[in-house]
Amino acid sequence: MAIDFTLAPEHEEIRKRVRAFIQGTVMPAMEDLKEGDRDQYLRTIFHLRSLAKAEGLWLPHMPKEWGGMGLGHVELAMVQSEAAKTRIGPWVLNCQAPDEGNMHTLLHWATDEQKEKYLRPLLDGTQMSCFAMTEPEVAGSDPTLIRTQAVQDGDEWIINGHKWFISNARRASFAILIARTEPDVPEGSRGANTAFLVDLPNPGWNDVREVETMHGSTGHSEIVIKDLRVPDSAVLGGRGNGHRLGQYRLGPARLAHCMRWISQAETALDMMVDRALKRYSHGSLLAEKQGIQWLIADSAMELYQCKLMVLHAASKIDKGEDFRTEVSMAKHFVAGSLNRIIDRAIQVHGALGYSTDTPLASMFQHARWARFADGADEIHQMRIAERTIAAYQATGSTSSATGGLPL
Amino acid sequence: MAIDFTLAPEHEEIRKRVRAFIQGTVMPAMEDLKEGDRDQYLRTIFHLRSLAKAEGLWLPHMPKEWGGMGLGHVELAMVQSEAAKTRIGPWVLNCQAPDEGNMHTLLHWATDEQKEKYLRPLLDGTQMSCFAMTEPEVAGSDPTLIRTQAVQDGDEWIINGHKWFISNARRASFAILIARTEPDVPEGSRGANTAFLVDLPNPGWNDVREVETMHGSTGHSEIVIKDLRVPDSAVLGGRGNGHRLGQYRLGPARLAHCMRWISQAETALDMMVDRALKRYSHGSLLAEKQGIQWLIADSAMELYQCKLMVLHAASKIDKGEDFRTEVSMAKHFVAGSLNRIIDRAIQVHGALGYSTDTPLASMFQHARWARFADGADEIHQMRIAERTIAAYQATGSTSSATGGLPL
Amino acid sequence: MAIDFTLAPEHEEIRKRVRAFIQGTVMPAMEDLKEGDRDQYLRTIFHLRSLAKAEGLWLPHMPKEWGGMGLGHVELAMVQSEAAKTRIGPWVLNCQAPDEGNMHTLLHWATDEQKEKYLRPLLDGTQMSCFAMTEPEVAGSDPTLIRTQAVQDGDEWIINGHKWFISNARRASFAILIARTEPDVPEGSRGANTAFLVDLPNPGWNDVREVETMHGSTGHSEIVIKDLRVPDSAVLGGRGNGHRLGQYRLGPARLAHCMRWISQAETALDMMVDRALKRYSHGSLLAEKQGIQWLIADSAMELYQCKLMVLHAASKIDKGEDFRTEVSMAKHFVAGSLNRIIDRAIQVHGALGYSTDTPLASMFQHARWARFADGADEIHQMRIAERTIAAYQATGSTSSATGGLPL
Amino acid sequence: MAIDFTLAPEHEEIRKRVRAFIQGTVMPAMEDLKEGDRDQYLRTIFHLRSLAKAEGLWLPHMPKEWGGMGLGHVELAMVQSEAAKTRIGPWVLNCQAPDEGNMHTLLHWATDEQKEKYLRPLLDGTQMSCFAMTEPEVAGSDPTLIRTQAVQDGDEWIINGHKWFISNARRASFAILIARTEPDVPEGSRGANTAFLVDLPNPGWNDVREVETMHGSTGHSEIVIKDLRVPDSAVLGGRGNGHRLGQYRLGPARLAHCMRWISQAETALDMMVDRALKRYSHGSLLAEKQGIQWLIADSAMELYQCKLMVLHAASKIDKGEDFRTEVSMAKHFVAGSLNRIIDRAIQVHGALGYSTDTPLASMFQHARWARFADGADEIHQMRIAERTIAAYQATGSTSSATGGLPL
Repeated sequence: MAIDFTLAPEHEEIRKRVRAFIQGTVMPAMEDLKEGDRDQYLRTIFHLRSLAKAEGLWLPHMPKEWGGMGLGHVELAMVQSEAAKTRIGPWVLNCQAPDEGNMHTLLHWATDEQKEKYLRPLLDGTQMSCFAMTEPEVAGSDPTLIRTQAVQDGDEWIINGHKWFISNARRASFAILIARTEPDVPEGSRGANTAFLVDLPNPGWNDVREVETMHGSTGHSEIVIKDLRVPDSAVLGGRGNGHRLGQYRLGPARLAHCMRWISQAETALDMMVDRALKRYSHGSLLAEKQGIQWLIADSAMELYQCKLMVLHAASKIDKGEDFRTEVSMAKHFVAGSLNRIIDRAIQVHGALGYSTDTPLASMFQHARWARFADGADEIHQMRIAERTIAAYQATGSTSSATGGLPL
Repeated sequence: MAIDFTLAPEHEEIRKRVRAFIQGTVMPAMEDLKEGDRDQYLRTIFHLRSLAKAEGLWLPHMPKEWGGMGLGHVELAMVQSEAAKTRIGPWVLNCQAPDEGNMHTLLHWATDEQKEKYLRPLLDGTQMSCFAMTEPEVAGSDPTLIRTQAVQDGDEWIINGHKWFISNARRASFAILIARTEPDVPEGSRGANTAFLVDLPNPGWNDVREVETMHGSTGHSEIVIKDLRVPDSAVLGGRGNGHRLGQYRLGPARLAHCMRWISQAETALDMMVDRALKRYSHGSLLAEKQGIQWLIADSAMELYQCKLMVLHAASKIDKGEDFRTEVSMAKHFVAGSLNRIIDRAIQVHGALGYSTDTPLASMFQHARWARFADGADEIHQMRIAERTIAAYQATGSTSSATGGLPL
Repeated sequence: MAIDFTLAPEHEEIRKRVRAFIQGTVMPAMEDLKEGDRDQYLRTIFHLRSLAKAEGLWLPHMPKEWGGMGLGHVELAMVQSEAAKTRIGPWVLNCQAPDEGNMHTLLHWATDEQKEKYLRPLLDGTQMSCFAMTEPEVAGSDPTLIRTQAVQDGDEWIINGHKWFISNARRASFAILIARTEPDVPEGSRGANTAFLVDLPNPGWNDVREVETMHGSTGHSEIVIKDLRVPDSAVLGGRGNGHRLGQYRLGPARLAHCMRWISQAETALDMMVDRALKRYSHGSLLAEKQGIQWLIADSAMELYQCKLMVLHAASKIDKGEDFRTEVSMAKHFVAGSLNRIIDRAIQVHGALGYSTDTPLASMFQHARWARFADGADEIHQMRIAERTIAAYQATGSTSSATGGLPL
Repeated sequence: MAIDFTLAPEHEEIRKRVRAFIQGTVMPAMEDLKEGDRDQYLRTIFHLRSLAKAEGLWLPHMPKEWGGMGLGHVELAMVQSEAAKTRIGPWVLNCQAPDEGNMHTLLHWATDEQKEKYLRPLLDGTQMSCFAMTEPEVAGSDPTLIRTQAVQDGDEWIINGHKWFISNARRASFAILIARTEPDVPEGSRGANTAFLVDLPNPGWNDVREVETMHGSTGHSEIVIKDLRVPDSAVLGGRGNGHRLGQYRLGPARLAHCMRWISQAETALDMMVDRALKRYSHGSLLAEKQGIQWLIADSAMELYQCKLMVLHAASKIDKGEDFRTEVSMAKHFVAGSLNRIIDRAIQVHGALGYSTDTPLASMFQHARWARFADGADEIHQMRIAERTIAAYQATGSTSSATGGLPL
């Protein structure tokens, strides 16, 4: 035990293998794709997945006994980050959102029977899933506001409600659905909601449209739930545990997002530098101008901070310590940095950066999502402040709220 | 070897002893002082120093064979940070600037004779020293601009020039003085300057005034050097090595600043929270208002980042790796955070924060210095950018310039 | 003459008529359109244009003798701003970019014959035009970098080159094309380029694709110019005047952009407030939370500043004074504010703001363009700094570079 | 009536006379002063005041019938701004805070008798005054929190309480004192307080100390009020009108601050440019570096905005329109800009800027005060947001909250 920022050699080994596989196998395969050939695309992904499995680069986030790589969160950080160098990377290793979070959730909360039925096919890569919590009418961060209601009817529950931004819903074989079951729980407290496993398709589950977004319509559905009936055995994690289950799920899921975002931000910084070295204006290369250097330096600093934060938060999860503040800080800062770094890269590219000739425009459109997905900036700031205040009240110092580090 | 953010138990032990000594012995002694009684003040410091020595809390930054605590930079980070909870702390442990940096410099560059004459009394705490590089006429970051000139005259050097912001000059028994000795070295390159050890007082060394600053006049001198003669044996570290010596010195010295600044920033954050919990306005406590919570959360996040950066940079120094980018990033960011966090704390205190009834006003006035001491913000941004660009040119990726971390 | 921020009554009258026409006639007509019915869309626009003409709300930026409304730039500001409340507004009044700027350019620089042939049909609304300056290979802000070359061949010019982001090219009956004619003019100086009027379609003008951008592919073309021949009479504004002509054009055109952007920013602020009044979370409406109030207040302040800046810059144009600094400052600040205000509005809307259910997502994607169109942020900052420095050098005060105001 | 940003010729004439007087008479006189010679200092000021009176440059903010220059607020803006080019300027013209605001207050609220006794000597320059509202225990922005209490006792009032940051108290012949007289007015509403005129010195008014601040101890007193007795005729402006009177006073007083701050910010920008033109580093003058140019450009833009805002707000006061939002926005933005511009000027000066060799350090220490004096940033943001929301609720548009401009 002593401060160390390097990977154990066996994990460094894994990191190199993932990198070699992504850069040597996945990326070339994706470049060979013909645009618009959906069949070829799917065949390629299946082929890559079988290669990943054969290489033992499958389910990096799952324990070995469930067919995964048995990595801690720190090791996972580097695998996710290497994988995310291409958008398809996490899919190939079967650690893509929201399935990754759902696997964690099922592993922790599901009964043995539920694991066999729902977790197993996710791990095998033969099914996909979705997580249905967000509602258009209410703020998602406040669990007692959820309006979807589940009412008991004999051995069954009847569920009515309205969800949206349900990623992956059209490809999912089942949903984890959060509904209010305890109408009497007062506003602002926990314990009001329950999670249900819902087989899809299902007559009570109406996927009324894909919500169009700034980055297109790739798979966020709006769902109208009308007299959906599920058996009592569909309850996941126990009655009244819906919010707790969501929170449990979100910690590592948020960090997994961060790992992928860091990878994207690094790509943007690389592009920014590359462009600055090639573009000449007003007597010098952009790379030689003080202001452009500031954009590069500030981006490098932020990215460095992102990496340190994610490593530390992952380390706290691995140690079984309370990681909520660290994950909130990482999520808030990495999401913001991602947006700022891509924005600067675009500015250095000028009109080219605004065109779709580089990936920057698409990255920009995707990145905006990061600032409210899985907790808006403002929610995380509120939580960080609350915990900082609580730390001060408990100990007379805010120190434990700034990482609990020896400094 | 594996990522770890905790101290080894023996170092955690030391940290606790330093903390106990600072909070249990130094702080109470300082509170007992009568204002304006300079004699009592000096007696108290000497007494505290003897206690520190007896406790083995002396020279945390020096190797054991030179009477120090033999700590690495990571361990040093936490000792400096604990010590800096009171402004006098580093003085009591004999690790105050600029003596601390001068000790490092002498240990590394001095001959055995020079060590006996100059290093030894610093270590014993019987002498103090100063470092004379900055000149009013030229930008300090560019070594070939230095105008103080040393010209050889037989076995001696005759030095003429003009220095200012020479901290501690009036209390120093000697100076490390940087002067240009190689007039032909072209602008922008190294090798133009040489360091000299100058005994003080000295007829050629004229301390013309203490420079008044925003925080008062506590010991930055302006020096006119007029036909100062030193023997050839006064050369420190070899002819033409003046800039290299300065850079070597500055790395750890900058980080030591950061450690102390973090401690100050934490005090400011503690005060911000304390005030927010006590001040009521427009229907609620400040601590309950969303905007004030943002100030708290943003400060907590920045302070957390500061701590991670300093730990990592210290770890790089300890491992003998190139730490320049990491130290530049830490220095730039910690200095900025210090200013921002104190500024927010003042704003939350309102007029009280502007008064000298709390330490915040004085902290604010001192903190402004941090943004150009030992390399202005803009110099560090330039260096970070240059190294980020160089990393990309060398490897096709900026990754090694954002910490070289496994992520 | 005395400071006054109100419109003359006759202009206030016009403003009200434009507003009534846009809100009472144009907007309802646009709402009645069936999505995807291109024919109906075009018929509607032609109909609305004929109504505008009949109402005397046609060519607000042109003098009365050319069929326009004969407004100054101040009055124009309010007309553009009212018109831009719907994206189609400027089209209906025939003051849309780039035709608006091209009309100005032709009015000022064209011969009588050129005016009859090119300006007249633009004014009538029977033709459209484009302006071809930007090149993919070089920074547009530095005129001597332009690589498109025109070489004299008897009475003709032969032009070869490469342009992109040529807005409106596919609908244009002619282009104003900037090409280098004077190869010996040194880097960084003016006088290298000449403007040509090019009839379209034209065998030497190859529209190779529409450049896809972050907001879709609505009409920015990439053009390969290959042995394009134009007669000597196609020169517009005299040989070597290409850059001067572009600059003359850009001043008012930039301000016209600002007027439309202000209108968009106001819509975003209105939406932000509306949402904050409807969304409930964690015990109160968003509108009641201090942090959300900061977002609203900061946006209101910025929008207020935008309006003052545009009014003042317009006033300087109207007075025939040097308006370059003021227009640079307005262009830089309004473009930035537009992006920030829309960004905040999206954040307050959460996932809804990211969806295309509100216009915010599209506004966001369009707004990013504003920060480099017609001079990137960095170019304007450079120019503002240069003029501030020059003012100080000339007068010992920067005052004339901050508006030359009586304060 | 039509938009115009220039002064009427007769006012431009006055501006030039003020400028000539300040730069030609006041500044040279101040430069001749010997440091520390208090007597000479006072004699000089009295002499300059008599010159100002003779020149008709006396009481620029007062109507002619009261011996003033009879200027509107727009004209006042330029006089204040010219005067504030030297710190002593407003004193010489007898328009210094807090007397200036107190004169306004007395003119508007005082009875004829009160005017003779209190206003007249202020106008003559034979007395000074203070305004006692702020209390250490409660947030000043919330009037119902005021704890100083006045209780009626026959024809007299007995006042007890605690005030601080009472500027000018030691030189004042009387105070305007705000105390709570109506205990039953509920929290958050108006009408709780009453203003009293208190002759000084006074046995119930104990000036216990000058509050030391970041910029020294120049005249902010802490006052303990103990059984202070005043006659009923000391009530100023009617019972329960204390808050209203304070608000009435603060509008123009805040704007007068802004006028002086703009003048200071301009001085800082001038110094920044001057230094950038003289300092050479890393191959070029600072003025030639892109990043330093950004600092200059951003400062020029902000200062330009400050000037436009103050002119517009002054114009609204002159027109008798509701100016509260505009003054709040000006006060918030000018105070922030002042701090930012001085901060950048210091950074460009490096260590020199931190020393007291230039006025920048002192300006920096004074400027911090601006961000909470007369309403902290956060209070103004709250008010601006509330009025923006109210505008939207009343009219469906935020337009009237962003200046009510024709744009």
